[in-house]
Amino acid sequence: MTDTPASPSAQPAPEARRGREARKAARSARGAVSVPYISRNLPLTEVLSEEGLKLIVANAEMLCQEIGLEFRDYPSALERFKAAGADIKGNRVRFPKGLLRQLCATAPADYIQHARNPARSVHIGGKDTVFAPVYGSPFVTDLDQGRRYGTIEDFRNFVKLAYVSPHMHHSGGTVCEPVDLPVNKRHLDMVYSHIKYSDKPFMGSVTHPERARDTVRMAEIVFGKAFLETNTVVTSLINANSPLVWDSSMLGAAEAYAAANQATIITPFILSGAMSPVSVAGTLTQVLAEVMAGTAFCQLVRPGAPVIFGTFVSTLSMQSGAPTFGTPEASLAIYGAAQLARFMKMPFRTGGSLCASKVPDAQAAYESANTLIPTIHAGTNFVLHAAGWLEGGLASSYEKFVMDCDQLGQMHVLAKGIDLSENAQALDAFREVGPGGHFLGCAHTQANFESAFYRSFTADNNSVEQWMAEGSQDAYVRANKIWKKWLADYEAPPLDPAVDEALLAFIAEKKASMPDANY
Amino acid sequence: MTDTPASPSAQPAPEARRGREARKAARSARGAVSVPYISRNLPLTEVLSEEGLKLIVANAEMLCQEIGLEFRDYPSALERFKAAGADIKGNRVRFPKGLLRQLCATAPADYIQHARNPARSVHIGGKDTVFAPVYGSPFVTDLDQGRRYGTIEDFRNFVKLAYVSPHMHHSGGTVCEPVDLPVNKRHLDMVYSHIKYSDKPFMGSVTHPERARDTVRMAEIVFGKAFLETNTVVTSLINANSPLVWDSSMLGAAEAYAAANQATIITPFILSGAMSPVSVAGTLTQVLAEVMAGTAFCQLVRPGAPVIFGTFVSTLSMQSGAPTFGTPEASLAIYGAAQLARFMKMPFRTGGSLCASKVPDAQAAYESANTLIPTIHAGTNFVLHAAGWLEGGLASSYEKFVMDCDQLGQMHVLAKGIDLSENAQALDAFREVGPGGHFLGCAHTQANFESAFYRSFTADNNSVEQWMAEGSQDAYVRANKIWKKWLADYEAPPLDPAVDEALLAFIAEKKASMPDANY
Repeated sequence: MTDTPASPSAQPAPEARRGREARKAARSARGAVSVPYISRNLPLTEVLSEEGLKLIVANAEMLCQEIGLEFRDYPSALERFKAAGADIKGNRVRFPKGLLRQLCATAPADYIQHARNPARSVHIGGKDTVFAPVYGSPFVTDLDQGRRYGTIEDFRNFVKLAYVSPHMHHSGGTVCEPVDLPVNKRHLDMVYSHIKYSDKPFMGSVTHPERARDTVRMAEIVFGKAFLETNTVVTSLINANSPLVWDSSMLGAAEAYAAANQATIITPFILSGAMSPVSVAGTLTQVLAEVMAGTAFCQLVRPGAPVIFGTFVSTLSMQSGAPTFGTPEASLAIYGAAQLARFMKMPFRTGGSLCASKVPDAQAAYESANTLIPTIHAGTNFVLHAAGWLEGGLASSYEKFVMDCDQLGQMHVLAKGIDLSENAQALDAFREVGPGGHFLGCAHTQANFESAFYRSFTADNNSVEQWMAEGSQDAYVRANKIWKKWLADYEAPPLDPAVDEALLAFIAEKKASMPDANY
Repeated sequence: MTDTPASPSAQPAPEARRGREARKAARSARGAVSVPYISRNLPLTEVLSEEGLKLIVANAEMLCQEIGLEFRDYPSALERFKAAGADIKGNRVRFPKGLLRQLCATAPADYIQHARNPARSVHIGGKDTVFAPVYGSPFVTDLDQGRRYGTIEDFRNFVKLAYVSPHMHHSGGTVCEPVDLPVNKRHLDMVYSHIKYSDKPFMGSVTHPERARDTVRMAEIVFGKAFLETNTVVTSLINANSPLVWDSSMLGAAEAYAAANQATIITPFILSGAMSPVSVAGTLTQVLAEVMAGTAFCQLVRPGAPVIFGTFVSTLSMQSGAPTFGTPEASLAIYGAAQLARFMKMPFRTGGSLCASKVPDAQAAYESANTLIPTIHAGTNFVLHAAGWLEGGLASSYEKFVMDCDQLGQMHVLAKGIDLSENAQALDAFREVGPGGHFLGCAHTQANFESAFYRSFTADNNSVEQWMAEGSQDAYVRANKIWKKWLADYEAPPLDPAVDEALLAFIAEKKASMPDANY
């Protein structure tokens, strides 16, 4: 599980061609250009001393031993834990000291999630960071139409935007809820959209064990049944019902994926102050307890099944009870949880571009940056909600999606650290220019200017006069044009027609087998 | 120079009083409440390995020896350097290996800048971080009146806002240019405004040696001449004329301050790609060379005079030539320069809340956060431009000032790190609440909720329905109301009438002694 796939390097644009063919080729190239996932060359920022880390671990062990966790309405989980040596009383499971860590030890330190286009496969763990879009919003919003329920059309649009974005490595999962489709069938259209409109890796359905199994079946159609037996092609999000509860639908989905050797992100979803104590240290203690228990369950189902140590922690306004994002306490929780994941020798998921703002304004950007930068400095391996999140996750925003993608591009450069090559040292440039000179025209600048600095595609760096002449457009207005251009330029990656046909046949058969239902 | 002042703790609000007196008291208390400068409890983020750091140092030494720096139109600087053993050819000064570091060794590792209110004195260096407002903008802007030249009225307003902001530790310097006053006299009004309308520490004039001396004279009126001989009460900004040039006006001001035992921030002001090589490593090399040369000059003037290792590095758009801010290369330069300052055992200044945006929109906030967070993680001691910077520093923004101040408040919490006290561990809360419970009402939450989380005063965390009912105001519109309230609530700190009179008499005499001039 420690091999890395061949590095999917950015594909160069093709030679110029003429007329319609050239434009078509340019569009294809645009879609195809992709930057490989980040391999960090930055030291980690760690906020807990070794002593502090040990304290949190000891408290979490105590929590699991003395108070325990509940595994609700899922007898097979209780049976598995009982057989493994835990103490069971009703739904409550208490773990003798050391048992959980021992059970978690079979979880791999890293894994490869294969994409149907091998150049887009991602390595989850170690020094690598993978970005995935916003997940789970019932609403979508854009500057033209405002806020409304998401549809399958919106869903496809976000899949396409994630495919076009060169700095998004993953197609994600529920990029918005397609509320226009029946709940018991929409997972089929969602998984199909990820496969059809993108060739990046994707996430599966978790709302029911049968829907998780459908995801696996569709993946088998794409990758072949034999391939899935020894390889991971789906990573899916399993949230705890915090505090200290795992419920049946999540356990069922986790079991289905683990049994099929597919990856799960075992994630305490916590608004601190309500679902955990009103302190970072207390919250981290709970995070570790919940992740250990969820991971142990997956390892009992199938030792060696890939599991990501997930953490979603934000805070509450203790005055209004509203969730708040990008707060300093949430940043500290990101850093601390990353250390806990490393302690557990597991890949880590947290963070993203989170905010409470209702529009992509300064509040949205401050809060998102306050989440994303710690996410990078903490050494996060899988970043869900990396782009498009607005309004506490209630809405997927088209404009914020492209704004955030620009920030993701910047994080690629930051994570590379400082280039100390002879070229970067630039000693000849000093010799050529000297005191009082200008570097713009010197040989070193001429040789390096094209690739020297990250180029933002959302920032306006013009003079105020130029900016006013162009209509005084703020970032929101400019981003509106960008996502429309991305969608206009989108061209689907090729999909084997036989595979497409088999997927559609599977979906048709599944849909015909049950009535529409909204649960 | 290593003593720290008595910790200026936040002053509690007074007991409730009745009627007008109570309101007046509340206003006073609001102005007076101030959070002490940050004492970091976070480990540093360092991007250069020890080997990388040594490489940059060796290259900078080579630069100073082989290429040298120019000290223009300032013969006394050349004489001082010649006497110290440097090689002088015209204005070009080359330094034998090791000489500059030897000359810089007398610069103190830290110092106290005294404020006229001793509770507001700040410790510059070590683990401490001090925030100061935007500096040097010719324009100001707000939502009502738009962009216009700054006036002395605007200047006073920004001094008042910095005084009212609980998370701003310093009154700064040229918070905007008072363009309505003659250039050769406005420094008198600026320094007076800092003394009169605030009791926080401040910065002096640097546009002419005589204006620096005027600043020192006014400080002597406030603090007493004897006090200044052994204490530092002014910190002023001395910019290099990059690349590798120190010019006469800056050298003259630096000499005036150093001679009076007052602090200077020796700062390469660099747009990388034009004023330094188009690489971070090359830029850091130049930064170190320029800071060492400027610091050595101050130490030759007066060994032991406080000097801050300053760095202002941003990037150019290599396509349009426009300055860009909040870029990943600038973040890396912040981290790298901080390591160089620690290598030199000097306090460090960089960063702030920088952006290129013309309005306080998402671009402004992303870029500002991309600057401010690295500023904090790098361990910066003095943060100029911490609030109010807009449009590449061309405009001081009223709305962005309060937005940024809110971010500064958050940085106070981040820099504290994770509280691991028994209370923060919250084990009793787990025992009380248990799996599936709710922490909102538990004893631990009740005891801690008031101080548990930082409370943003600019964010809107309400539901979208509530937000729409209140007029769908974005952060820009909300911030407009906040700065107006701050100014309305402002009440000047007491100033000894005899001191005030002496200051006004000095200013009147100086102004009468010369004609108005705009140079």
